[in-house]
Amino acid sequence: MTLLPKALTRLIESFQQLPGIGPKSATRLAFYLLHVPTDQVERFAENLRALKSSTVLCSLCKNVAEADPCSICSDPSRDQTIVCVIENPTDVLSIEKTGKFRGLYHVLHGAIDPLNNIGPDEIYIADLFKRLRTQDVGIKEIILAMNSNMEGEATAMYVTKQLKAQNAKLKITRLAHGLPVGADIEYADEVTLTRALEGRREY
Amino acid sequence: MTLLPKALTRLIESFQQLPGIGPKSATRLAFYLLHVPTDQVERFAENLRALKSSTVLCSLCKNVAEADPCSICSDPSRDQTIVCVIENPTDVLSIEKTGKFRGLYHVLHGAIDPLNNIGPDEIYIADLFKRLRTQDVGIKEIILAMNSNMEGEATAMYVTKQLKAQNAKLKITRLAHGLPVGADIEYADEVTLTRALEGRREY
Repeated sequence: MTLLPKALTRLIESFQQLPGIGPKSATRLAFYLLHVPTDQVERFAENLRALKSSTVLCSLCKNVAEADPCSICSDPSRDQTIVCVIENPTDVLSIEKTGKFRGLYHVLHGAIDPLNNIGPDEIYIADLFKRLRTQDVGIKEIILAMNSNMEGEATAMYVTKQLKAQNAKLKITRLAHGLPVGADIEYADEVTLTRALEGRREY
Repeated sequence: MTLLPKALTRLIESFQQLPGIGPKSATRLAFYLLHVPTDQVERFAENLRALKSSTVLCSLCKNVAEADPCSICSDPSRDQTIVCVIENPTDVLSIEKTGKFRGLYHVLHGAIDPLNNIGPDEIYIADLFKRLRTQDVGIKEIILAMNSNMEGEATAMYVTKQLKAQNAKLKITRLAHGLPVGADIEYADEVTLTRALEGRREY
């Protein structure tokens, strides 16, 4: 005898497939939805359906967008000569929030990670090289803004090497490392502090 | 200019309406689903839709079920003279897992909580009293298995008072309080320890 209605068990399974949601949370969420008005649940289902049908990858920058090219790539006020290379679409939001970057993006959708069988061909790296060759307005600077971990570093090294081979004059920059704003020196790790010292600037 | 496609924003909003999921988690989940095969997302949407259309409340015990009466209420092998009163449908699962209870349930779907404007009329308490009067097989014992917090205690007190007024001979019991199995006495709070002492049994 199964104790839970099948519809409930199936929804719990669907929730469990999401990252960071275990059996307990999945059960809690499914039971919560039982008490929610039907139209709100319908809207949730509709939004899930629309996720795939109403979004596309921008053919230029590979960002998730409503139209192709995306609103950033098609914005004439943005500087097309600078391209910031990032791992995930969410990183676009983070950088846009600073309001300090007016160039274009290139989303890799991951990083090179040999331990998990992700090589250069599994992410949108080749598209970046192609873009460098074919974009109407020549690209002058590439900012590498990968995450500061092993995979990010490996990806940055690979991209740099390939880009240099393709165009020796291209300016390739990386985000600065150093103390986060508001951080205590006492609690900073040695590597961060070393980078902060190396990257010190005149006051 | 909105940065995210509308379909994505809407799904993030839907996730945010779930308990314990804030803007960051909601964004992470929505972006995760972008990389998931379409048929899995479709199945998720379908499961959400089916949640409301394929489940009913059992008219007898008010538990969430596939059919009315539910599989527990319609099981002839269960003892219909004992009814365990609980706050939430998930509590049925917890008690069934012990394998020690062979009676029926009554799900209140909440507890009396005046601070949040939940009185006896907002939960299925009246149905319990009606059930006591009308059930074919007379109920001999009511086990109050509400949560051990203020709202649970208030609900238990209210139900006890009303039941006593309706049927003075009815046996009303509560779950035992005491040390959780595996717990250190050192770390037990005073109230739990007091209850454990009061409820001590001969060895």
